[in-house]
Amino acid sequence: MATEHVTATLLISCRDQKGLVAAVSDFLYRNDGNIVHADQHTDLEESVFLQRVEFELDGFAIARGEIEAAFRPIAERFDMTWSLRFSDEMPRVAILVSKMHHCMYDILARWRMGEIHAEIPVVISNHADGRAIVEEFGVAYEHLPVTNGDKAAQEAQIVALLESHRIDLVILARYMQVLSDDVVRRYPNRIINIHHSFLPAFAGARPYHQAHERGVKIIGATGHYATPELDQGPIIDQGVAPVSHRDSVADLVRKGRDLERVVLARAVDLHLRNRVLVYGNKTVVFD
Amino acid sequence: MATEHVTATLLISCRDQKGLVAAVSDFLYRNDGNIVHADQHTDLEESVFLQRVEFELDGFAIARGEIEAAFRPIAERFDMTWSLRFSDEMPRVAILVSKMHHCMYDILARWRMGEIHAEIPVVISNHADGRAIVEEFGVAYEHLPVTNGDKAAQEAQIVALLESHRIDLVILARYMQVLSDDVVRRYPNRIINIHHSFLPAFAGARPYHQAHERGVKIIGATGHYATPELDQGPIIDQGVAPVSHRDSVADLVRKGRDLERVVLARAVDLHLRNRVLVYGNKTVVFD
Amino acid sequence: MATEHVTATLLISCRDQKGLVAAVSDFLYRNDGNIVHADQHTDLEESVFLQRVEFELDGFAIARGEIEAAFRPIAERFDMTWSLRFSDEMPRVAILVSKMHHCMYDILARWRMGEIHAEIPVVISNHADGRAIVEEFGVAYEHLPVTNGDKAAQEAQIVALLESHRIDLVILARYMQVLSDDVVRRYPNRIINIHHSFLPAFAGARPYHQAHERGVKIIGATGHYATPELDQGPIIDQGVAPVSHRDSVADLVRKGRDLERVVLARAVDLHLRNRVLVYGNKTVVFD
Amino acid sequence: MATEHVTATLLISCRDQKGLVAAVSDFLYRNDGNIVHADQHTDLEESVFLQRVEFELDGFAIARGEIEAAFRPIAERFDMTWSLRFSDEMPRVAILVSKMHHCMYDILARWRMGEIHAEIPVVISNHADGRAIVEEFGVAYEHLPVTNGDKAAQEAQIVALLESHRIDLVILARYMQVLSDDVVRRYPNRIINIHHSFLPAFAGARPYHQAHERGVKIIGATGHYATPELDQGPIIDQGVAPVSHRDSVADLVRKGRDLERVVLARAVDLHLRNRVLVYGNKTVVFD
Repeated sequence: MATEHVTATLLISCRDQKGLVAAVSDFLYRNDGNIVHADQHTDLEESVFLQRVEFELDGFAIARGEIEAAFRPIAERFDMTWSLRFSDEMPRVAILVSKMHHCMYDILARWRMGEIHAEIPVVISNHADGRAIVEEFGVAYEHLPVTNGDKAAQEAQIVALLESHRIDLVILARYMQVLSDDVVRRYPNRIINIHHSFLPAFAGARPYHQAHERGVKIIGATGHYATPELDQGPIIDQGVAPVSHRDSVADLVRKGRDLERVVLARAVDLHLRNRVLVYGNKTVVFD
Repeated sequence: MATEHVTATLLISCRDQKGLVAAVSDFLYRNDGNIVHADQHTDLEESVFLQRVEFELDGFAIARGEIEAAFRPIAERFDMTWSLRFSDEMPRVAILVSKMHHCMYDILARWRMGEIHAEIPVVISNHADGRAIVEEFGVAYEHLPVTNGDKAAQEAQIVALLESHRIDLVILARYMQVLSDDVVRRYPNRIINIHHSFLPAFAGARPYHQAHERGVKIIGATGHYATPELDQGPIIDQGVAPVSHRDSVADLVRKGRDLERVVLARAVDLHLRNRVLVYGNKTVVFD
Repeated sequence: MATEHVTATLLISCRDQKGLVAAVSDFLYRNDGNIVHADQHTDLEESVFLQRVEFELDGFAIARGEIEAAFRPIAERFDMTWSLRFSDEMPRVAILVSKMHHCMYDILARWRMGEIHAEIPVVISNHADGRAIVEEFGVAYEHLPVTNGDKAAQEAQIVALLESHRIDLVILARYMQVLSDDVVRRYPNRIINIHHSFLPAFAGARPYHQAHERGVKIIGATGHYATPELDQGPIIDQGVAPVSHRDSVADLVRKGRDLERVVLARAVDLHLRNRVLVYGNKTVVFD
Repeated sequence: MATEHVTATLLISCRDQKGLVAAVSDFLYRNDGNIVHADQHTDLEESVFLQRVEFELDGFAIARGEIEAAFRPIAERFDMTWSLRFSDEMPRVAILVSKMHHCMYDILARWRMGEIHAEIPVVISNHADGRAIVEEFGVAYEHLPVTNGDKAAQEAQIVALLESHRIDLVILARYMQVLSDDVVRRYPNRIINIHHSFLPAFAGARPYHQAHERGVKIIGATGHYATPELDQGPIIDQGVAPVSHRDSVADLVRKGRDLERVVLARAVDLHLRNRVLVYGNKTVVFD
């Protein structure tokens, strides 16, 4: 599964302009770039251009440490928002969880089997009861309950932990507390939440009860970046499953757990492989 | 595809009680009923029992015209809401349509090829431009525009037409006018609408624009019975299709048309084969 | 999620005959049976009748230990193949695995979180390297390699272990050895295998390579009972996922793992909840 | 739905080489090309590069009639297989059909509603009974039965018709005769067939019977280019639908018809919008 060679990935977004593709491809060509993956998208309505180019470091004419400086003039000429990533970097991930452990457990198991390319130093929960599972994975378990209703105090502790662990990505694995705007804004497009419905249907609380009440024939799950507006952030991935009148709320919950696991894992994987670009309130997923 | 033998179908709903299944199956057994299909559902929360039993008339001990009277004592004992249908009855269907003809055309073509077991004497439109297509099928085309904003007058004409054609089922094949409560109440669970989204997401107007704006990764269509509350009626069937950032609104419309066609046709087919029972605001679909 | 009350489940299959449903429902009715779930299927071509009835023990007129004897006369009258299960029985499950651990890990994690209603005393592998994971779950890990090509000897050890652990269900969680006919025949409809393709497409070895080579646009996974004919047993569940030209074999493997996990877990869950009946080479799944 | 502006589309495939993307994008940039859609794919294993670039004619520095000559030097430098298409060209399509008309009818209805951008001058059938439908669309109906088992004679007539109508694309809309190698080779990647199964499962005759016999839980349909090897050609699109033990062969046929209609229409649409490139026995679909 592993890429043998280290690759560099350019993620670019800017106003659509003539010559963009020519400039980037010329830059890579002149420097003997061996392109492994290239995809681009132009939103004609919004006049936005987005591109992902992944190329091998091996054989590239510019040394790893100098690529950024070498590309900067092009980026400035087109006023790009951009970043450069290397495939051997290990992003640092924290998982926030509450009482339901299936998504957290699934991510930890995938991580241990090498499916998730990241470091996971810490799991943070507002409940005490996941410690045994988490510690078996050699991951620290931090129990941070909300005490006396003082959510601000608890959140300050969360932020302190995220900072001390130098966290790049936060996964809300069925974390049942709403994070305040302040926390969310500290990690723009770096908090991934799993919502247990096909958003925008059944936003908010108890979506399976809502779905059962409404009598839908298909249920869903949505992996999205958290934004200050609850359940309104850019959608990364969605999944669905058929249901029928034979399914009780408990059946929907059971079937939904499989959707949640898979959709969250896919969203996290796409993010960690630098496949997701956000613009406006949407994502471009170069899969 | 055709059933060679004429069958009778009992559709039953009532409060859940012990002995229900025993009573119905005993009735059929004693009268030499050859069961072709039997399915039932108990909603334990609501304590509602629903059943569909289809049996062959051939060999049944009671003559077709006397089955209803023979079953009535059982129905009364359990206080059933029930109906008895025969497979050689031909329900009479009217299609209401506006400017987009793909769903109407699809239903007419299926009907002509024998896929839809019904009579379709009339198509009613608030626009003039579908006449040529409809008349090729030997179906009357009634153009009933809303003039001077007088929707009540137009609806009175629609109702008069439905009555004169003795219509059993009304199909809203992308009919873009909201029917008044009064019309909807005349045809309870006998008006099927196709909504071009995965309800309850994107109820109301321009759902593909809403879906594009929201950046969803899956779109849907919903076939449901019309009720006075717009887009809130019991759902019969839903379908979905994956989409991506590469899809413009026009692409969503294009992909959505296929969902609308298929989901509406399925909902109509399930209804016409007496496979749908409604209770509360939900359906039980015995497929 | 838990059913508060203990239930009994009758699983019945026999030649289709008049009076079957009446006899069973009458038996339950006369004994004050509170039916929780009832479903039946008649294969008209094969003239086979299959039924599943689940009812509460609480309030039932016959004591748990005497239901079997009380029902036997009915079963004999209709020459039924039948069984009676109780919801508080705990089936004993063994997992067979090779080098890929994702399915095994997924099942163990679900089991630990209470999603799988069974005991799992043992995992058997022809490789040594899953021990650490398995033992964390408090499950015995038995390493039984094939040595000197003597598969018969290894299989004898497997059978001995299955017997000593009184195993009811064997899960082949990507076990890469073909079990001999003899082993398979000892556990009819009690060995569940996950095949990593949409059977019957790509039976045999390396299905993702085959799928990539063929250029399919959808991949699948199949959960089925093992029979002596490889990959030919009765199918319990299947799942699919879209793929494209952008997917390498490694991508198919990655996407396929999610299908395998979910489809195997669903097949196992359906089996353990007594929802699956086998006839001929097919299953009836009362979900 | 219509594109207001005429566009040109370059479809390119060649051996993967450095500088390809740079050369093409530079060509467009220097000539003021306004790119509407660009996508590319590199098969690293096969070392094949494929690209689709669509740009507006309006404002392009080279006149429509001279683009081909202007691009040729680049094409020759990289030894490209390539073509240039214009969005206002109308490909000419023939439909071959037998006794089942649902796919043919669906395509004709879509065509009439403007969903299919092509001319359809002729439908050819080995049966007599679709004439009325076809002629209502103003399309010629040619009845070419195989007489006295002389298939070669019939095929000669088919080829003569295709040639006299200057046909660009042949649609096999459930045409139940196998075309000889000779006919297939005349129209490489220009004959689209709908196979009523999820290929490679159930190739050959009566796939729904095969699927029912095997007890699959999902059925499918496959749109593919015809090649001399029956049901082995490059796959353009596939679709699936869940089925259960409750579905008879007739139910599979009924559910399958919806798959066939939609999958064939999608495959044809992708082809006509120049979104499909073939290499080896696979397609790249730039959707």
